[in-house]
Amino acid sequence: MNPLVESPRAIVTGASGFIGSHLLGRLSREGWQIAVIARTASASDLASNPAGPKVYTYTGQTSEVVEAVAEFRPQVVFHLGSLFLAQHDAAQIAPLISSNILFGTQLLEAMRLAKATALVNTGTAWQNFSGAVYNPVNLYAATKQAFEDILIYYVQTAGIKAITLRLFDTYGPADTRRKLLALLIDSLKSGEPMGMSLGDQVLDLTHVDDVCTAFLSAANLLLNHEEPRHEVYAVSSEERHTLRELVAIFEEIAGKRLQITFGARPYRDREVMEPWQGTRLPGWHAKISLREGMRRLLLAENLFSPRS
Amino acid sequence: MNPLVESPRAIVTGASGFIGSHLLGRLSREGWQIAVIARTASASDLASNPAGPKVYTYTGQTSEVVEAVAEFRPQVVFHLGSLFLAQHDAAQIAPLISSNILFGTQLLEAMRLAKATALVNTGTAWQNFSGAVYNPVNLYAATKQAFEDILIYYVQTAGIKAITLRLFDTYGPADTRRKLLALLIDSLKSGEPMGMSLGDQVLDLTHVDDVCTAFLSAANLLLNHEEPRHEVYAVSSEERHTLRELVAIFEEIAGKRLQITFGARPYRDREVMEPWQGTRLPGWHAKISLREGMRRLLLAENLFSPRS
Repeated sequence: MNPLVESPRAIVTGASGFIGSHLLGRLSREGWQIAVIARTASASDLASNPAGPKVYTYTGQTSEVVEAVAEFRPQVVFHLGSLFLAQHDAAQIAPLISSNILFGTQLLEAMRLAKATALVNTGTAWQNFSGAVYNPVNLYAATKQAFEDILIYYVQTAGIKAITLRLFDTYGPADTRRKLLALLIDSLKSGEPMGMSLGDQVLDLTHVDDVCTAFLSAANLLLNHEEPRHEVYAVSSEERHTLRELVAIFEEIAGKRLQITFGARPYRDREVMEPWQGTRLPGWHAKISLREGMRRLLLAENLFSPRS
Repeated sequence: MNPLVESPRAIVTGASGFIGSHLLGRLSREGWQIAVIARTASASDLASNPAGPKVYTYTGQTSEVVEAVAEFRPQVVFHLGSLFLAQHDAAQIAPLISSNILFGTQLLEAMRLAKATALVNTGTAWQNFSGAVYNPVNLYAATKQAFEDILIYYVQTAGIKAITLRLFDTYGPADTRRKLLALLIDSLKSGEPMGMSLGDQVLDLTHVDDVCTAFLSAANLLLNHEEPRHEVYAVSSEERHTLRELVAIFEEIAGKRLQITFGARPYRDREVMEPWQGTRLPGWHAKISLREGMRRLLLAENLFSPRS
């Protein structure tokens, strides 16, 4: 089966998030028929676009997910929905378990009942603190690992074929997450000084377009798999820099020095100094270098005029 | 620290279950101060006994668990609470995740906040289908594995010392679970014929008194541990018989043949034919042989008169 010829059907969760919204655009441009399962708040945004995907609303009920998957009959489910928290407090325990374990289990149960078999799941390199097979940086990463245990049950018993893509840091346009590059751009615009940690932690940033390609590659791998199995791959740019180096590259491309004081803040608790080295997704590698990705971001902000 | 001298404090979850209720009696006889965290229904039963443990009611809120652990300050938490389902349907997904993952995570979060460090957790040999490091027999077993991944996060970050006891089949007095020995006793009383599977599956039955000893041994190991870590041990009688052999032993002790047709029923989906061989809990071994345990059950039912 060639999914690009037959206009395959995909369900996407987490479609209102940073990567999910980019993936939605990409699937749409490549001719997929798309449905999303979304919480009420996200669902109304997504449904407001008449050219957009079919929207199934989720309020927490298993039956909602079961009915969505049964009706839409996806060839592939892209599961990106999750609650991200770098650090948690007691009040966030229930929403974390609910978003990151319960919802995914409901999705797997719905796939089992509808005999939908291909799942691209989203993990995090934070499941592998200090390079361990499993050592979670935070409770968020632990819930991702816990969900993989549930997934293995469905692989063993319900014919599910799954690939979990463990993501590192990601970046790209329309990122509302206030991560490093957004802070650097703010500092570039405002000229305000900024305090950072010592900056010796190594980062692996992948451009969201490369991440979307990885999700599509994983889907194609699954559609060619015969046997149920679960595989875990790293979506790593393999271009690794310390935070200090990264700031220097940014300054070089922006053509301006930023007012940054390294060492003004402590490292985070369980700061990842050296990212995990996982097996890279077969047949995929990042094509957008960090320099190219930064140029694009600065161009989009009118902060970059090509000089060469 | 010798807990038997200083009257240590324990919180027990799942105290209204088969093993939990036996453990409660045992802790009480050995002089522990006990509190239980129990769902409303179980809580009212437990609270009705004026000589019973302190009862904290749980309706699903994290804050209830946080307050219970903060107030009672247990040296050891015995976590036996779970929803057991040999097979599940879609409507049971939410209660399974809630009972077997959310509640335990709330308990760990409460322990982190109260600096309570010792947890005896309850797993199942069904996490190890076909002897695998991890291959869950059913979704129940998958949720137990998922919880262990959450537990590892707390071990890594919150100073928790934990032992997970993976249980095999258990039996003993006051067992309302309608398992094999209860069915054999019924058949013995009624003389009714009974259909079974072919009966070549190997069983490992541990008497509940031995299981309770294992929980106490694990607690003592933890109280002597200096470092946070998670260990997993098998609570196995190491006396293994096929179902057919087990029925023959039962008939021998009861002094009567039962009307059993082997092969009248199919094996269960993913029937465990050969139980997992795990590392046995150090310093503990089962003392009640299967023959002795059966004699006690039959005596309690007035179905056995010692002849030798």
